[in-house]
Amino acid sequence: MSAPLRTVALGIEYDGTAFNGWQTQPDVPTVQDTLEEAIERFLTVPVPTICAGRTDAGVHATHQVVSFQTDKVRSPESWVRAINTFLPKSVAVRWMRPVPDDFHARFTARSRTYEYWILNDPVRSPVMHGRTGWYFRPLDVERMRAGAAHLLGEHDFTSFRAAECQAASPVRTVEKLEIVRMGRLVGVRIRANAFLQHMVRNIVGTLIYVGSGREEPGWVKEVLDAKSRAVAAPTFSPSGLYLTGVGYPGIDIPEKGESPFGWAEE
Amino acid sequence: MSAPLRTVALGIEYDGTAFNGWQTQPDVPTVQDTLEEAIERFLTVPVPTICAGRTDAGVHATHQVVSFQTDKVRSPESWVRAINTFLPKSVAVRWMRPVPDDFHARFTARSRTYEYWILNDPVRSPVMHGRTGWYFRPLDVERMRAGAAHLLGEHDFTSFRAAECQAASPVRTVEKLEIVRMGRLVGVRIRANAFLQHMVRNIVGTLIYVGSGREEPGWVKEVLDAKSRAVAAPTFSPSGLYLTGVGYPGIDIPEKGESPFGWAEE
Repeated sequence: MSAPLRTVALGIEYDGTAFNGWQTQPDVPTVQDTLEEAIERFLTVPVPTICAGRTDAGVHATHQVVSFQTDKVRSPESWVRAINTFLPKSVAVRWMRPVPDDFHARFTARSRTYEYWILNDPVRSPVMHGRTGWYFRPLDVERMRAGAAHLLGEHDFTSFRAAECQAASPVRTVEKLEIVRMGRLVGVRIRANAFLQHMVRNIVGTLIYVGSGREEPGWVKEVLDAKSRAVAAPTFSPSGLYLTGVGYPGIDIPEKGESPFGWAEE
Repeated sequence: MSAPLRTVALGIEYDGTAFNGWQTQPDVPTVQDTLEEAIERFLTVPVPTICAGRTDAGVHATHQVVSFQTDKVRSPESWVRAINTFLPKSVAVRWMRPVPDDFHARFTARSRTYEYWILNDPVRSPVMHGRTGWYFRPLDVERMRAGAAHLLGEHDFTSFRAAECQAASPVRTVEKLEIVRMGRLVGVRIRANAFLQHMVRNIVGTLIYVGSGREEPGWVKEVLDAKSRAVAAPTFSPSGLYLTGVGYPGIDIPEKGESPFGWAEE
């Protein structure tokens, strides 16, 4: 007679540089495979996990949430410590929480928050490499904010969607879109109910066209209305993108991770 | 007839993770070799360089200064752009300046400034790995400041010196020693006329013993007075250490680089 299965959630942080994204794939390193191997070494049985947001190759997370079922009963601290001993330096479990039986890291989530960090400097910076995108012309944050305002609310985001995106619908609701300057860094923080593939990186590329003066803020609305990927700016680099929050209203788990550069709240 | 030799200075930034320190060594990658190869590709002649501070394996810099002599005449922007095309992502030239003929990056320097960044968090953080040291018990910054006060001024720093340190004298003058907390990060910034090998990392290890409550602030003076490496705390990890400034009074070149985490001035 085995113990009853319970659902548990883990908060995961990773440096995505060396991974081919979150999702399991043959013959390439992924965060999911790395995590599931570590969990299996702890539990001695294979455990399939569900995640809140399947990040692309090179994208980071300070707050990825995964859920799975297990009959193992241990303190949250034991889970964190034990699994972390089996993980490389590039991945860590930050917290563990028991959650309701029907919790599903993906379907229970009501929102996701991403931060994108741009190094805005005429010369590239080795200590920022792999952790930020880089744009060398000066960016005007006020112009970027004016452009970003057009994206708030429920829209068809076809213009900001990767060709290979497999979502059934291109409609998403952007709940919040903030931009901050901290010295030579510009941060973009977006909360939406969910995201299409490359949506944040395509939005960032488009806002950079506005911030650099190449396009006017109103152009963002034209891009949105065109419902065509061809009109938006190129997809910006994955290295500045971090999944930092997932919203599960009414569920008692942390709602966000650390901001990679300490977002300066106003 | 060749053009006259002029002395030039370059400001260099690097992520030291993959290097065996600054100084040229056989069979291992060093920042000096990497930079000199890139300069040689630009100038088409080998050029020996002098640096302001020979950083150890794994240590970073946002403001290393190197000097050398050349007959090449180009704009500062051309130097930066051209050499950077021959450098890996982990090293960059940030600026170039012509300097007086007798300028010597090491001997003309009157001070060096290092920042050490500690991730003070119960759980390790993949996005901070390689960029900070890690200490998991809470650190009390006021206690660390009280301990640090004993190190200001001219002292025999034998207790904070690596066994293999080759400096002729163990006497150094610490001109400034500041400590700041920014969220889960604790920053230590030290300016001295010069440093002994491992001096900053040994000071940081010792201040952590005080900040964690293991030792009292007055213990730092006991360690200093003992003039014995055996009494100080273990050398802290190289991954949180950055050379960020070099003082050349009266010379018209930048005096510091970026703080890797944006030191919050008070």
